Amino acid sequence: MTTHTAPAAPSAQPKEAAAAVRERLWLYDTTLRDGQQTQGVDFSVDDKIRIARALDALGIDFIEGGWPGANPTDSDFFAQAPATRARFTAFGMTKRAGRSAANDEVLAEVVNAGTQAVCLVGKSHDFHVEAALGITLEENLGNIRESIAHLAGLGREALFDAEHFFDGYKANPAYALEALRAALEGGAGWVVLCDTNGGTLPAEIGEITAAVAARLPEARLGIHTHNDTEQAVAGTFAAVEAGARQIQGTLNGLGERCGNANLCSIIPSLVLKPRYAERFETGVAPEKLADLRRLSVTLDEMLNRQPDPHAPYVGAAAFAHKAGLHASAILKDPTTYEHVAPEAVGNARVVPMSNQAGRANLMRRLEEAGIAVERDDPRLGTLLMEVKTREDQGFAYDQADASFELLARRHLGLMPRFFEVDRYRVSVERRFDAQGRWVTASEAVVVVHVDGERMISASESLDPVSREDQGPVNALSRALIKDLGRYQEHIEDMRLVDFKVRIHGQGTEAVTRVLLESRDAAGRHWTTLGVSANIVDASFQALEDAVLAKLVRAGVRGSNG
Amino acid sequence: MTTHTAPAAPSAQPKEAAAAVRERLWLYDTTLRDGQQTQGVDFSVDDKIRIARALDALGIDFIEGGWPGANPTDSDFFAQAPATRARFTAFGMTKRAGRSAANDEVLAEVVNAGTQAVCLVGKSHDFHVEAALGITLEENLGNIRESIAHLAGLGREALFDAEHFFDGYKANPAYALEALRAALEGGAGWVVLCDTNGGTLPAEIGEITAAVAARLPEARLGIHTHNDTEQAVAGTFAAVEAGARQIQGTLNGLGERCGNANLCSIIPSLVLKPRYAERFETGVAPEKLADLRRLSVTLDEMLNRQPDPHAPYVGAAAFAHKAGLHASAILKDPTTYEHVAPEAVGNARVVPMSNQAGRANLMRRLEEAGIAVERDDPRLGTLLMEVKTREDQGFAYDQADASFELLARRHLGLMPRFFEVDRYRVSVERRFDAQGRWVTASEAVVVVHVDGERMISASESLDPVSREDQGPVNALSRALIKDLGRYQEHIEDMRLVDFKVRIHGQGTEAVTRVLLESRDAAGRHWTTLGVSANIVDASFQALEDAVLAKLVRAGVRGSNG
Repeated sequence: MTTHTAPAAPSAQPKEAAAAVRERLWLYDTTLRDGQQTQGVDFSVDDKIRIARALDALGIDFIEGGWPGANPTDSDFFAQAPATRARFTAFGMTKRAGRSAANDEVLAEVVNAGTQAVCLVGKSHDFHVEAALGITLEENLGNIRESIAHLAGLGREALFDAEHFFDGYKANPAYALEALRAALEGGAGWVVLCDTNGGTLPAEIGEITAAVAARLPEARLGIHTHNDTEQAVAGTFAAVEAGARQIQGTLNGLGERCGNANLCSIIPSLVLKPRYAERFETGVAPEKLADLRRLSVTLDEMLNRQPDPHAPYVGAAAFAHKAGLHASAILKDPTTYEHVAPEAVGNARVVPMSNQAGRANLMRRLEEAGIAVERDDPRLGTLLMEVKTREDQGFAYDQADASFELLARRHLGLMPRFFEVDRYRVSVERRFDAQGRWVTASEAVVVVHVDGERMISASESLDPVSREDQGPVNALSRALIKDLGRYQEHIEDMRLVDFKVRIHGQGTEAVTRVLLESRDAAGRHWTTLGVSANIVDASFQALEDAVLAKLVRAGVRGSNG
Repeated sequence: MTTHTAPAAPSAQPKEAAAAVRERLWLYDTTLRDGQQTQGVDFSVDDKIRIARALDALGIDFIEGGWPGANPTDSDFFAQAPATRARFTAFGMTKRAGRSAANDEVLAEVVNAGTQAVCLVGKSHDFHVEAALGITLEENLGNIRESIAHLAGLGREALFDAEHFFDGYKANPAYALEALRAALEGGAGWVVLCDTNGGTLPAEIGEITAAVAARLPEARLGIHTHNDTEQAVAGTFAAVEAGARQIQGTLNGLGERCGNANLCSIIPSLVLKPRYAERFETGVAPEKLADLRRLSVTLDEMLNRQPDPHAPYVGAAAFAHKAGLHASAILKDPTTYEHVAPEAVGNARVVPMSNQAGRANLMRRLEEAGIAVERDDPRLGTLLMEVKTREDQGFAYDQADASFELLARRHLGLMPRFFEVDRYRVSVERRFDAQGRWVTASEAVVVVHVDGERMISASESLDPVSREDQGPVNALSRALIKDLGRYQEHIEDMRLVDFKVRIHGQGTEAVTRVLLESRDAAGRHWTTLGVSANIVDASFQALEDAVLAKLVRAGVRGSNG
C-alpha cells in the first residue's frame, strides 16, 4: 500500500524527539450525560455499561456517567458501573443558596454515587444568576466555592463546569472570572469553560480563553462547546490553541439541539495532524484509533440511528471519491486526494461508479468485485458507455455494488446462467373481513426455469409476529426464493434489510428507482437496484439481482458450467 | 414574543452607523457542481433550474452551474439556464500544455456556455503539477496565465480556483504564490484558495491566508473548504478573518466525502452574529434569511434525503429543548438557551415536554387550513395527542398539508361524508407476450359506496404515449377516480404529480410512508400521506385523502348534508 507521506499527511507516530516535550491533553466524554439530551436518545443501563467499556478501551480520561438522582437510570448505572482505567465522573450542580453543601440533598445524591471525580455545573453569567436563580451575585460565588470545597474535602477530584461562560464573559468579564476564581479557591482541579448555547464563534472562544489563561495562570482549563453554528470542533481547537487542556465532547457529536463537540472528529485530528500530534499527547494510542469507526457505528446501531455517511473520518463516504479526475489520481497515489490514511481510523477508501466516473474508477470497481480485466481491454469503453446510458435512465450504480458487479459480468461474458424468470404475478387486496375489520392481503406467484425444469412458487406476505401484511415486494421476494432447486441451499439465509424508493425524472419521463439491501447469515451486506415506471417491476429487478449476486459471490456454478 | 437582546443574540438589523463602513463579502454557491459530487446525488436539468432560482432569490452572488462538456446534463442546463440577478458561472480547468487557450477544446466548451463568469481550476501544488500533470512547473504557470487571459480577453469575469492551495503552500510557498500571481497577471478577478483534501486546520488556513494577503495585497481572495475534519465552516471564517472576501460553499454542505462548507450554516452566522454582521455586508437581506430552512428542506426533498434534524440553524431539532432545566427557562426567556431567534432562519422552537409550544403550533396549522377553533377548546389537546401518536407511527403531517386538514376535520366533526371504499384489488403481472417481449401489466378494481349506491370501477395502467405500464399505484388512482357518481365532475381534473416513498423505522417495526402530490386544472397543489407496512396500502390511503381533500376544498356537500 502507498503510505501517506505528502506534506498534508499525518505523522501517525510522532517523532521521539517531539514526544519528550509534548503536553498532556485530557479527554472528557459526556456521551452518557449531555449526549443523552439528544432528541430520541434514552440509554438503558446496559447501553451505558457497553459504551463506558468502549470509551475506556479507546483511552478516554474521564467518563461522565450521568446525573445521579436526576434520573433513575443514571443512579442505577453508577451502582453497576464497570471498573475502568478512566476516571468515572458524576455530574451535578452547585448547592442551592440558604443551606450548607453538606445539607444539600441534590448534591448529596451526586456525592453518594462514589465516583473518583465529580463535575458541578454553576452559573458564571450575571444575567442567569439574577434572572434564573434569583439570588445575589455574591451568594452564587459562595455556592460555587463551598460546593467545590465540600468535594475536595471528601477527597474527590472536583471539576467546575462554568455554564454560559462565554456569553457571561462578554457581558461581565470581571464576574465571569470571579466565578472561576471561587471554584479555584474551593480547590477545583479543573474549571471548564462552557459555551452552553453554542453560539460563540471560534475566534471569540480563542480570544476569551486566552484572556482567561492570562488572568488565571494557575487554573487548568477545560472546554465544552456545542454545534449550533457548526463549529463545535473548531471552537474546541481554538480553546486548545489558547491554553485549554481538557476537551469535553461526545461520540458522534450526540447532544441537544445540534449536538456537542464530536470526539470522533476531534480525536483523529489530535492524533493524526502534525500541528497537534507534535505538541500534545492524549490517552488514545495511534493503534487504538483504528477502532474509532467501529465504535461510532456501534453507537448508532445501539440507538437505531442511520450512521451519517458523510461524517468526518468515520463516515462510510468519508474517503469516497466520485469525481473522475480525483479517482484516477487516487489510483496513482492516495495522498493526492486524501488528507489522512483511511485505515488510521479503521475506515476504507471507496471509489464508486457514477455518471462522472472515468475508466480509472471503472477499473477500480472491477478490481473490488474480483473481476480481472486488462487496462486496454476495448470492452472497458463499451461497459462505461452502458453504465452511463443506464444512469441516464435512472440507474445509480454507485449505490448498488452488487448490481454493478452483475452488469459488468454480463457485459464481459463472466456471468453464469443460474435460472430464468418466466413470469410473475402479484396482487394486493384490501377489504373487510368476516369480523368487519379492514384487512390487506398480498399474494405472489413466480415461475422460473432452473436447469430446464419449470418451477412455480406462491407466497403470501404476513408478518409472522404482527400478522400484518407486508406488501407486494415482500410477497414476491418470498415466492422467488421459495424454491430455486439446487440453488436453494445458497439463498435460504438471505434477508431483505432495507428498501429505498425514489422517483427519477418528472412527468411522463418519471421512473421509479428501487434500492434493496440484503444480508446473509454470515453478516455480508449487498445492495441491488431496479428501475422501471412500475414500482413492482423495479423492485423485482432488484430482487432478482439480489439472488443472482448471492449465488455469484458464493461461487456457485451455473447451468452453463 | 420575547426578543433576543442578550449579549450573544443577533442584531438582525445592523446599526446604520456600522452599515456605512461594512465591507462587501461575496457568496459563491457550488451546489450544482461540487455538490453534485456527493454520493447518490444526480441533479436533473429541472432540479438545477429550481435550485438556481432559489439561490438567486436568496441573494447569492455567484451560481456555479456545472462543468459544460464534462457531463451532458451540465451542458443542457447552461443552454436552458434561467435569467438571474446572480452571476451564472461555468466551471472548467486551465488549458492543457502544448496548445493555445483558444485551441483547447475542453476550455472551448466551458467558454461556449456563454456565462458572465468562468471559474477555472488549476494546480498550485508543485507535487501535483509534476506527479499528476507530468509537466514542468513553468508550463503550469503559463497554462494558468494564458487560460485566464483568454477569458479576460473575451470579456468574462475570470476566477482562478487554486487546487490544493494550502497543502501546496506548506510544501512550497513560493510556487503556490507564483501560481496565484500567474492568474492575477492573466487578469483574474478572484483567486480562490482551495483546501481540496479538506485536511487543513482552521488555524493553518488563517495563518496561510494572512500570509497570502500580505504578499498579494492587490488580489481579491476567495476561500473554498471541505469538511474532512468537521471544520469547513470554521476554516471559511478563519480565511475571512485573514482577508478572504469570497466564500464558496454548498447548500446543506453537499459535496464529495464529508461535504463542502455549508452555506446554510455560514450565511446565518454572517447575517446574525455581530462579529460579522457589523463588519460585512452580503447579498442576503435579513428578511430573505427567513426562507433558509425551507430552502434546505426543499433540497433534501428533491434528493429524497432525510433532512438532518440536528443541522445548525435549519434542522428540525436546532431549537429543540429537551432538558427540563432548559425548557422551563426558555419559557421565561428564549435568550437563556438560544443563541439566535429561530424565526430569523424560518425555524421554530420545539419544547417537546411542554404542550404550550405544541398547541400554539397546532392553532397556527388549523388557521392555515381555514378551520376556526377557540383557543381553549379541549379538543385541541386530544387532537394534539392524536397527531403525536400517529407521528410516532410514521405519519409526517408537517409534510402533508391536506392529510393534516382531513385528520383535524375528522377529529373536530367537520368532515363531510362523501363516499366509502368497500374494497380494492390490484395486480401486477410480468410475462412474455405473444411476440416474445417482456411486458408488464397492472390492473386495479375499486369498489365504493356513494349515496347508498355501490359502484365498481376497473382500470389498467398504460401510459397513453409510451404504452409502458405505470404500475399499481397509477392503476388504483385511475380506478378510484373513474366513477364517483355526483362527485365525478369535481375530481376529473386531478392529476398525480409526485410520489415519494420512505421507509420509517427498522426491522419488523419498519413501515412505508407515501407522500403524494396532486394538482388540479386551476394549478392548486396539495399533498397527502399514507403509512402502512404494505406500500400499496400506504399509497391507497394517500390517494383516498387526495380525492377527499379535493372535494373538501372545492366546498362540495357530502351525503350527510
